[in-house]
Amino acid sequence: MQIGLDHADQLIARGRAAADELGLRAVFAVLDTGANMVAFARMDRAWLASSELAVAKARTSVKFQAPSEALNAPLQLGQPVAHFDHLNDGLLLMGGGLPILDDEDRLIGGIGVSGGTPEQDAEIARAALS
Amino acid sequence: MQIGLDHADQLIARGRAAADELGLRAVFAVLDTGANMVAFARMDRAWLASSELAVAKARTSVKFQAPSEALNAPLQLGQPVAHFDHLNDGLLLMGGGLPILDDEDRLIGGIGVSGGTPEQDAEIARAALS
Amino acid sequence: MQIGLDHADQLIARGRAAADELGLRAVFAVLDTGANMVAFARMDRAWLASSELAVAKARTSVKFQAPSEALNAPLQLGQPVAHFDHLNDGLLLMGGGLPILDDEDRLIGGIGVSGGTPEQDAEIARAALS
Amino acid sequence: MQIGLDHADQLIARGRAAADELGLRAVFAVLDTGANMVAFARMDRAWLASSELAVAKARTSVKFQAPSEALNAPLQLGQPVAHFDHLNDGLLLMGGGLPILDDEDRLIGGIGVSGGTPEQDAEIARAALS
Repeated sequence: MQIGLDHADQLIARGRAAADELGLRAVFAVLDTGANMVAFARMDRAWLASSELAVAKARTSVKFQAPSEALNAPLQLGQPVAHFDHLNDGLLLMGGGLPILDDEDRLIGGIGVSGGTPEQDAEIARAALS
Repeated sequence: MQIGLDHADQLIARGRAAADELGLRAVFAVLDTGANMVAFARMDRAWLASSELAVAKARTSVKFQAPSEALNAPLQLGQPVAHFDHLNDGLLLMGGGLPILDDEDRLIGGIGVSGGTPEQDAEIARAALS
Repeated sequence: MQIGLDHADQLIARGRAAADELGLRAVFAVLDTGANMVAFARMDRAWLASSELAVAKARTSVKFQAPSEALNAPLQLGQPVAHFDHLNDGLLLMGGGLPILDDEDRLIGGIGVSGGTPEQDAEIARAALS
Repeated sequence: MQIGLDHADQLIARGRAAADELGLRAVFAVLDTGANMVAFARMDRAWLASSELAVAKARTSVKFQAPSEALNAPLQLGQPVAHFDHLNDGLLLMGGGLPILDDEDRLIGGIGVSGGTPEQDAEIARAALS
């Protein structure tokens, strides 16, 4: 199953309302399970950089079937730095991306939000999926 | 002046209605005058290829401030093929892209449609802007 | 529905047998409906170039839900040249790519073959799916 | 000498068996000494992200003729972070990549595995080469 356009539009509408409440101008991207774009919306006067960041967060959530920050391991002295978000396909291990699941908890897509702090973006993403 | 997100959403809504009437599943992209994405929508079961084609048509319309097919010279024997749409930033000289103008005919963005023939896509783009 | 790895391996095995019969060294790529790679095989001493060509043909078949050569319009004098296979995501409008359908004719993926002429590649792709 | 396709398929088959035993869904990539892909397999429902990670690990092993984690220096306070895996060609300094050697310990290719923790991926890669 793949997320449909009407569903994606609903998620973005809820996300926009949540961003408005926080006084933020955000960008939203919804991808299907193949990490291909279904819907995208950039609020007026959002940072241009947020466009790529939103897509990268959505892509990360789809590709790991997890929140975009879940794979970001804390730094540990004496341990190698484990990071892989620099790879070409544009992962981003910061809050604001969430997998989208159907009623039986199967992946149908992912949403990415960028416009505030990672914590604010994650809050907006949760509001979009609530 | 730049096209706003609400305006872009209205254009896409009208375009979707026109595609539905033609029985087509299309992809829509709206870019601002900087050729950066404002809104995007892929109708369910549209060709995946249409995503990039729609963006390329919108980009072409913004960058030339003209319909996307306007720069595509007819093939003439004894003449070189004049094409430049293979450049890295992804122009596409086929119907389906239109510049978006304000009431005083100033460029505020561009729309690209892909899902049918170039003629159908151009018809849908005109319907979106009507 | 997405094509599974075992199914993809079977298609490639049949394709390799067909290439062997023709005395060709081919490359095979199988993608899912999101145009993401499921399986890949490069026969010994195949052209290195065939790797990218096989992937591009498979991608084209998935993205247009059609044989990779289907969208390649014949040149017509007095008409613009209609081409779009130069876009960044690597389409290739030459024979050798086929969509993979399930028993109800729904897309589950695509296969791309490169190693001989486009006609030979298309023959091998048909043999793989037969 | 370069690894052949039959050899690559055997390595992947052994790796798949090892992943099955661990209850993991992994992606496998085998590259030749030119860091070009020979074979690739994505197990059903593996993370999509694992595809690029597996290729990057195999590439790292080929390019350094060493396990993919060998060049990853532990983090030390007062020392600069020594990392270079963000370069465009996609290195990844995490466990799961191994060079493939012939009977005389000469490099013939590299294998990359992704699907679990770096330690699990390294275990699966060792099983594939055992």
